[in-house]
Amino acid sequence: MKTQFKAITGSVVAPQGFMASGVFCDIKKLGTGKGSNKGQKRDLALIVSETPATVAGMFTTNQVCAAPVKVCVERVQKSQARVVVVNSGNANACTGKQGMADAREMVSFTERALNFPAGSALVGSTGRIGVTLPMDNVRAGIIEAAVELGATQVHADNAVEAIMTSDTRPKQVAIEFKLGGKTVRIGGMCKGAGMIQPGMSATGARPAALPHGGLHATMLGFITTDAAIDRKVLQQAMQQAVAQSFNRITVDGDMSTNDTVLVLANGLAGNRKFGTKCPEFKVFQAALKHVCLDLAKQIVRDGEGVHRVVTVRVKGAKTVQDADAAARAVANSALVKTSWHGGDPNWGRIIDAVGYSAAKVVEEKIDIGYSALNGKKILWSLKRGQPTKVTFQQLCAAVVPKEFELHINLNLGQADAVMYAADLTEEYVDFNKGDVADPSSLGG
Amino acid sequence: MKTQFKAITGSVVAPQGFMASGVFCDIKKLGTGKGSNKGQKRDLALIVSETPATVAGMFTTNQVCAAPVKVCVERVQKSQARVVVVNSGNANACTGKQGMADAREMVSFTERALNFPAGSALVGSTGRIGVTLPMDNVRAGIIEAAVELGATQVHADNAVEAIMTSDTRPKQVAIEFKLGGKTVRIGGMCKGAGMIQPGMSATGARPAALPHGGLHATMLGFITTDAAIDRKVLQQAMQQAVAQSFNRITVDGDMSTNDTVLVLANGLAGNRKFGTKCPEFKVFQAALKHVCLDLAKQIVRDGEGVHRVVTVRVKGAKTVQDADAAARAVANSALVKTSWHGGDPNWGRIIDAVGYSAAKVVEEKIDIGYSALNGKKILWSLKRGQPTKVTFQQLCAAVVPKEFELHINLNLGQADAVMYAADLTEEYVDFNKGDVADPSSLGG
Repeated sequence: MKTQFKAITGSVVAPQGFMASGVFCDIKKLGTGKGSNKGQKRDLALIVSETPATVAGMFTTNQVCAAPVKVCVERVQKSQARVVVVNSGNANACTGKQGMADAREMVSFTERALNFPAGSALVGSTGRIGVTLPMDNVRAGIIEAAVELGATQVHADNAVEAIMTSDTRPKQVAIEFKLGGKTVRIGGMCKGAGMIQPGMSATGARPAALPHGGLHATMLGFITTDAAIDRKVLQQAMQQAVAQSFNRITVDGDMSTNDTVLVLANGLAGNRKFGTKCPEFKVFQAALKHVCLDLAKQIVRDGEGVHRVVTVRVKGAKTVQDADAAARAVANSALVKTSWHGGDPNWGRIIDAVGYSAAKVVEEKIDIGYSALNGKKILWSLKRGQPTKVTFQQLCAAVVPKEFELHINLNLGQADAVMYAADLTEEYVDFNKGDVADPSSLGG
Repeated sequence: MKTQFKAITGSVVAPQGFMASGVFCDIKKLGTGKGSNKGQKRDLALIVSETPATVAGMFTTNQVCAAPVKVCVERVQKSQARVVVVNSGNANACTGKQGMADAREMVSFTERALNFPAGSALVGSTGRIGVTLPMDNVRAGIIEAAVELGATQVHADNAVEAIMTSDTRPKQVAIEFKLGGKTVRIGGMCKGAGMIQPGMSATGARPAALPHGGLHATMLGFITTDAAIDRKVLQQAMQQAVAQSFNRITVDGDMSTNDTVLVLANGLAGNRKFGTKCPEFKVFQAALKHVCLDLAKQIVRDGEGVHRVVTVRVKGAKTVQDADAAARAVANSALVKTSWHGGDPNWGRIIDAVGYSAAKVVEEKIDIGYSALNGKKILWSLKRGQPTKVTFQQLCAAVVPKEFELHINLNLGQADAVMYAADLTEEYVDFNKGDVADPSSLGG
């Protein structure tokens, strides 16, 4: 279905009726001067819809959850939205009552600055944990960002720069496709590089079905579309899309306090609304998944210190939970991740991780193999628990590329799961040793 | 109770009636010559009791489990033992039917070499995964080791050298104490440095009570005692001791296919046997735990690339499972472990890990603090989810020592748990990138 989605420019302002901006307001209070941008990255963004938009969201299931997440969880469930205000440099997490007051002030100040009705703003934060926001700077930033709003690629670029923390690259995408005869667009931007193994749900509450291992970044994702769609339908499309994308990635296995994905749909494409049983739903859901998966993979590729990205495909599990548990155990094993870094096709560590995972497995049934990214030909290193005749040199060649796929067949059932995983490198460790001159230097 | 255990020399040959040996028989087939030891470490050990000994064992709960583990699980449940034969260089894991035949040949050949009855030998292996044992070398090694048996410290030193893989130091201990008026001794040796988060049970089967996260080393431990004790009583003392020691450590969160702890009790101390309700049981159990915990901590301190060892103490959990889950989430978080390496008292990462753990937690109730090793004074960085007035400099000073304690109080209940954890360093990554000239170079 991929081919029907045409890649376009414009990121979050590609869909009709959206504007964005990104400014520097010195949220880290580095003292480089209010409103100035002397070598500092922008740190406050606005994404605005000209008309009221239907919203849906997915939020971290971490029980320690930041104030902006709490505010969004309340708001997405009851109303439409016009604007999202996002800052980097401070996560507004573990900031107690003052943090909640500040998050509420961010949305209400944004609403007043844009002359929008109460309840029409959403908020996201990423950065240090445990430090309260410098609200004077935030308010000045919101006013400046409101003035700078626009719908060009430069506006989108400024907005995405403003949400980056340890990211080395901006992460954006936009597509165009036909829906019921109308041209619909979806745009998106996101941030995230470390503390990445999102496990998001619609309310931030843990669904019983989610495996323990699956409850683990700060990642923030903001998606815009001009599709006309009802909230419940949008939420369902979003849940499926996030389950198949952001919730399938891991850099370091750590789930953040701030993970948030929001989608705003303003209906300006003029398509006829559709239910979840309509053929249009399938198309829209696939398009939304396409955007989310593209963004999710950009996060893994830009993960802290990451050299290699491995798609871990588990099939033949008895249950989806088993498939997920086996894939996550492999994707998060320190020994497997270091062997990927070393270009070592070490199946011993892989079968070891599969064996200690919560998945039911039988050693004598396990197949392990490699393919090129999206490749059809699998080079099997292990069949039914036993090494094959494939030479070690062949296996080494299979794990040289910057991206490859690892295939594990448990041969016990019909369930499968995929994880998009990063290797573990010296650079990751060096980066995250922390800047001890800076308390809680890296956070949610 | 610690003070009543007197540290003595002798390791596994400290108790009456035990002998040991360690030889080089070129199990990696490096071709340095059969029986020679030209710069190569010894790779085959025997531990022998002069008289039949009661045995108990604990084994990896990894579903992918090595042939020697399978042989031991069968044997410890029905009989006494006289000898343990152990090799390094080859884990005899994922070796199929040939591996099982080789493990059985190792025990039966050892029995014949020592003129012991069938069923009186146990076996352990550690090293490469997926390569069959060079049985000619193994047989030659067993014969040589049988000739070299003796009861001096040198004999014990040779035996412990023969079970080392990535270990940089031998790990041994022995104690002496009074039991019912008699002098009893317990000696022990072990190996392990990476693939370390043991989760062992008596049968290798997973007890329902063990948390998923807890099912994760190759570590091998061999304990000898001259106490007189019945098998069931010994097994119960062993289960408690392992639950409080080897099953509480993590280097990298990976559980091996070969984890094994065996204890042999030959009764030569002449104490009166005791039941689990007798006061002597408490003393014996405490002594066995003392030996196991000493060995377990030696493993963490010698963990691959480890700079710092942190005792993670969680209290105030609703259930023991919750306490365990929170402690393991923190102890295995890549972000927390790298911050320990960096000397960064980053409570944001700690509360983040507690929040995504399977434990029930409430952000506003969480306390986080530091103390010196075994120190009573706790420096709190967080109280009830909020930063305290303790300065960042004070906190930094608390995490400078090579060993310190991290205290987490969930303030929800009465259950507690402890984990002995390692930091994550560039050296760990560099070491485990793997030697791509050597298939499955590091294994079980």
